[in-house]
Amino acid sequence: MQTAILLFDGMTVLDAIGPYEVLQSVPGVEVCFVAREKGEIRSDFKRLGLMADFTLAEVPQPDILIIPGTPFPESVTGDPAVLDWIRGAHESSTWTTSVCTGALGLGAAGVLEGRRATTHWLALDALKAFGATPVEERVVRDGKVWTAAGVSSGIDMALALVGEQFGDEAAQAAQLIIEYDPQPPCDAGSVKKAPAPLVAALREQFGDLMQGTGEA
Amino acid sequence: MQTAILLFDGMTVLDAIGPYEVLQSVPGVEVCFVAREKGEIRSDFKRLGLMADFTLAEVPQPDILIIPGTPFPESVTGDPAVLDWIRGAHESSTWTTSVCTGALGLGAAGVLEGRRATTHWLALDALKAFGATPVEERVVRDGKVWTAAGVSSGIDMALALVGEQFGDEAAQAAQLIIEYDPQPPCDAGSVKKAPAPLVAALREQFGDLMQGTGEA
Repeated sequence: MQTAILLFDGMTVLDAIGPYEVLQSVPGVEVCFVAREKGEIRSDFKRLGLMADFTLAEVPQPDILIIPGTPFPESVTGDPAVLDWIRGAHESSTWTTSVCTGALGLGAAGVLEGRRATTHWLALDALKAFGATPVEERVVRDGKVWTAAGVSSGIDMALALVGEQFGDEAAQAAQLIIEYDPQPPCDAGSVKKAPAPLVAALREQFGDLMQGTGEA
Repeated sequence: MQTAILLFDGMTVLDAIGPYEVLQSVPGVEVCFVAREKGEIRSDFKRLGLMADFTLAEVPQPDILIIPGTPFPESVTGDPAVLDWIRGAHESSTWTTSVCTGALGLGAAGVLEGRRATTHWLALDALKAFGATPVEERVVRDGKVWTAAGVSSGIDMALALVGEQFGDEAAQAAQLIIEYDPQPPCDAGSVKKAPAPLVAALREQFGDLMQGTGEA
């Protein structure tokens, strides 16, 4: 199965690399990185460059489509060429997926109309503008569309997708290869678990930005 | 604090990107990517290019040093220039760290002599050759040296390091920003939990390679 992962300036790298690392270990899956133009793209805070090996036009019909997120969702929602590509790829895809605020890209392309979906907790409400029903879960599947919550959740989403497509044994193998036996030293990974003052402080700092209003 | 993450041809990308994503969110931490030469390096199975912005010589004394792993440990253990850099950086570092088989790089540089350490489960025994005591834990700290188990464990290691260096609240904030509330759909992420036939099959497939003997 051909898997295309979108790269774009301003993206959050782990959103892409979590699913990439899971999927590339599965026999029969080919993963490639695509962008508007070939060449280097820079991460959300410019600290890392990643290479896009293919243009959007070169990979029009991937079997699996992965849209990573960004603290600056307009990088995707405001790019007609990318939205056209998402729309076209979604027509023939087996699975259309997003991680973090990548869901807003799917939404802006019209993919989430009438669907249940999730995204980074700071951006959940923004899904409504695209006709989606926000769901406060780590991984949400609605038909062939999978959306994952913030950043690290793409690992869980990809494992679930591998299980669905290739069976439980394939998912277990992928999990063991990347030794995904999480043991976070603290338990503040979701809004439900984190201290309320921390949640409030991050909402204050990033909330409007992640909603795609551009106000930070 | 200056954090330097080593890039090299053949590396496993998530090993680097897990800690990167955690650390880059912490105020006061600067993260940069270094390699023997500036420019593009390719991932373990050539599917992704990442850009090294700095040469080793340009970042001789990072406060935090991160050595990612690879299915081909000789990429690091057989590179005298990289080992010299690790040795020199370790002399003045606050924290010296590895993810996955990056520990074999630390070992080959002499950093693990007499220390407790961990690495990818397929490579644990190889630590003994460097005078280290292999420990079957996800994150092992021995003095200023942190080693993490396979691939995804770098996220847990980085959160623990942030907690140690900057306090629990900083670790909680980093965890919530990347929404690290893991919910893997299956429970096969460690040798202790995975089905024995799967463990045996992966040992057969990758064992000698990951031990650094070059035999796959």
